[in-house]
Amino acid sequence: MEFEILKQSKKSRARIGKIKTSHGELITPAFLPVATQGIVKTLSSEEIKEIGYQAILANTFHLYLSPGSSLIKKFGGLHKFMNFDGIIFTDSGGFQVFSLGKGIEQGVGKVAKIFPEKEKPKPRGSSLVKIRKEGVVFKSPFDGKEHFFTPEKSIKIQEDLGGDIIFAFDECTSPLDDFDYTKRALERTHFWAERCKKAKKRKDQALFGIVQGGEWKQLRIESAKFISSLDFSGFGIGGSLGKTKKKMYQILDWTIPFLPNNKPRHLLGIGYLEDFEESIKKGIDLFDCSYPTRMARHGIVFTKKGILDLSKKKFLKEKSPIERSCQCFVCQNYSRGYLSHLFRAKEISALRFFTYHNLWFYYQFLEKIREKIYYGKI
Amino acid sequence: MEFEILKQSKKSRARIGKIKTSHGELITPAFLPVATQGIVKTLSSEEIKEIGYQAILANTFHLYLSPGSSLIKKFGGLHKFMNFDGIIFTDSGGFQVFSLGKGIEQGVGKVAKIFPEKEKPKPRGSSLVKIRKEGVVFKSPFDGKEHFFTPEKSIKIQEDLGGDIIFAFDECTSPLDDFDYTKRALERTHFWAERCKKAKKRKDQALFGIVQGGEWKQLRIESAKFISSLDFSGFGIGGSLGKTKKKMYQILDWTIPFLPNNKPRHLLGIGYLEDFEESIKKGIDLFDCSYPTRMARHGIVFTKKGILDLSKKKFLKEKSPIERSCQCFVCQNYSRGYLSHLFRAKEISALRFFTYHNLWFYYQFLEKIREKIYYGKI
Repeated sequence: MEFEILKQSKKSRARIGKIKTSHGELITPAFLPVATQGIVKTLSSEEIKEIGYQAILANTFHLYLSPGSSLIKKFGGLHKFMNFDGIIFTDSGGFQVFSLGKGIEQGVGKVAKIFPEKEKPKPRGSSLVKIRKEGVVFKSPFDGKEHFFTPEKSIKIQEDLGGDIIFAFDECTSPLDDFDYTKRALERTHFWAERCKKAKKRKDQALFGIVQGGEWKQLRIESAKFISSLDFSGFGIGGSLGKTKKKMYQILDWTIPFLPNNKPRHLLGIGYLEDFEESIKKGIDLFDCSYPTRMARHGIVFTKKGILDLSKKKFLKEKSPIERSCQCFVCQNYSRGYLSHLFRAKEISALRFFTYHNLWFYYQFLEKIREKIYYGKI
Repeated sequence: MEFEILKQSKKSRARIGKIKTSHGELITPAFLPVATQGIVKTLSSEEIKEIGYQAILANTFHLYLSPGSSLIKKFGGLHKFMNFDGIIFTDSGGFQVFSLGKGIEQGVGKVAKIFPEKEKPKPRGSSLVKIRKEGVVFKSPFDGKEHFFTPEKSIKIQEDLGGDIIFAFDECTSPLDDFDYTKRALERTHFWAERCKKAKKRKDQALFGIVQGGEWKQLRIESAKFISSLDFSGFGIGGSLGKTKKKMYQILDWTIPFLPNNKPRHLLGIGYLEDFEESIKKGIDLFDCSYPTRMARHGIVFTKKGILDLSKKKFLKEKSPIERSCQCFVCQNYSRGYLSHLFRAKEISALRFFTYHNLWFYYQFLEKIREKIYYGKI
C-alpha cells in the first residue's frame, strides 16, 4: 500500500490523499460502506461500485463465525468470494470486544449520549466477552459457542480473508470505563499491537495500528506515540471517543499531532454526517460506519435538508422523489409516496432503495468535502 | 388491446401470439411475474424489464388495502406509481375469495396435493370471507377490518389502478368443494361477470372474463360457453383446477374448445415449470404465479437439472454459479458458496439474487417453448 498526499490544506489538518493498493486506488478523505458479512446489506457489489465507492470495510469477527475465514480463503479470499475488485478493509475484531461486551451490558455506543431516538441502544443483558491478557473469549451471539481471539488469531483470520488493509487487534473500551480501567486496557492494546506486527506474514496487505486511550489526554498521547513507533502502514483511532461529540474532537486534537503525517488515519466506526467535516479538518482520512445503511433499513433517508422518516404515513401522498436534485437511480425513478408504500407494506425492495440512496448521499457528501479541500475552503 | 396470432401450431392448440396495448407489446405464450403490492418482491421495475419481462400482474385486493387505489389513481395509476412502463394486468380480487377463505380454512391450493414439502399449506384458522350473492365480505388479514367487494367495486378499483388488462370479479372455489357448491358458486361468478361488463367505464383497458366450474366437465363447459358469450377481450381460466395435474389438463381440454380462438387465454395463478408446455399445447397463452419468486425467498433456485436448496450447508463450498450456462447477472458474478452464505446469514441481498435468477430462468424457459412452437416442434 502506498499513501500520497495530493493536497494539504493551509487552514487545517485536512488533506486530499491517495491510497494505492493492488485492488485500485482510493481518494481520501473517504467513507467506507460496511459489508459486515461480506456484503453491504441489501445491495450488490456492482451497485457499490456504481455509486462510486472504491473501498468497503468487512467485519473479521462475523466472517470468522460465518461462513468461516478458511472457507473464504479457499475461494481465493474475500475479493473473489464477494466479487468485489475494489479495496477491502477488514477490522480486527477489537470492536466486538466492546460491542458484544460493555456495549451490550451498558447499552452504550462508542460515543455515549448521541443517539437519535430510533437508534438508542438499550442494555441487552450480560457481556459476551471475557478479556484476558492473552486475548479475548467471545461467546457467539448466534449459537453461544466460545471463541478465543488473540492478536495472532485476528491476523491469521485477516490474512485468510485477504483484505488489502487490515487492523491490529485491540480492546475497544467503553465511554463509561474509568481512567484506571482504560489505562489497563490500553496496556493490553499496546501489547497486542506488537504481537500483531510480529504475527503478520503476508506482504501484500497493509497493517494499521489502532490508537486507544478513551477520553483521557494522557492516555491518547501515550497511545499515539507508542503505536506510531511500531511502523504501521496507517492508523485507526478507536473508541471510546468520550461522552460527547466535543470530546471526540478533542481526542482527535490530542492524538493526531503525534501520528506521522505521511500515513492515513481512520476514525473507526464513525460517522454521522455532521462528524465528517470537523474530523477531516482535524486530520482524519478514512471513516466507516453502518449508520447510513442501518438507518435505511429503518425507513430513514438523508436529504440536504435533513432526514426523512419514510415509514410515516404522511409521505404516501408525495409525488416528488426523496430529493429532487439527487441523481441516484432511486430518486430518478421513484416517488416518496411509492417508496413509503413499499416500506409500510414490508417490501424488501424499500430497504434496498433507501440503502442505495443513503450511500449515494454519503458519497456525494464526502465528494463535496474533498472539493472544499481542493479549493482551499477548509 | 389487440391480439394477433403470429403462428398456430399444427400439432396442438399451441400458438405464438402478440398482445398489443398502449404500454407496449407482449409476445405469448408468456409468464407474468407477480407484483402483489405494486412491486415484484425484492426487485426493481428496471430489473423486471432487464430480465426481459414485458408484463406483470398486480393484485387488486392488496393494493386496495394498501396504499389504496384512490391514492394510486392520484399518482396517475399503477404504471406511474411503480414506474413500470410495460403492460400491467390486475386480478379482480376473486382469487382472494379462495385464498383468504377456503384456502386458509382447508390448507389447500388451487390444485390440491401438488405442493413440494417447503410449500405445503396448512390450515391456518377460519375463513376471512363471507360470500353473498351481492358480493364478498373480506376481513383484512392485516387489521381485521371488513371490506365489501362487489363486481362493481372490483372494476372501480381496477379502473383506478389503471392496468392495461383487468379481470372480472369471480368466486374462485376450492378443489375440496363438491359439485353442488361449485355449481352455485358458478352461478354467482356468471352473474358477477355480467355486472362487471356493465360496470366497466374506461375504454383504454381490456376486460377478461373468468371461466370457473371446478373439476366438473359439465360446469366448465357451461362456464366457457357463458363467459364466451359476453364479448370479453380475453379469458382467465380460474381455479379450482382439481386434485391432480392430470385433472388440470383435463379441465383445459374441456374448456378451451369453447373459448373463441382469436382471444388470449390466461391460466390464472399457474405455474410450476412442468405445467407450462402441456398447458400451452392445450391452448394457454398466459400464466402468472408467485411460485418462482416465493421459492427464491425460501432459498430455492431453479436449474436445468432441477431445483437447488441453497439454504443447505453443503453449497457453501461450491465455487460454481447456480448454473454455468445461465447469463443472468447473478450467475455471471456470484458462486453458489457465496449465495448460500448470504442466505444462511439472513442477508436480504440473497433473496434478491435468487429472485432475479429464478425469474431469468422462467423467462428463458418460456422463450424455449416459444421457439419450439415457432419451429413446429410442439
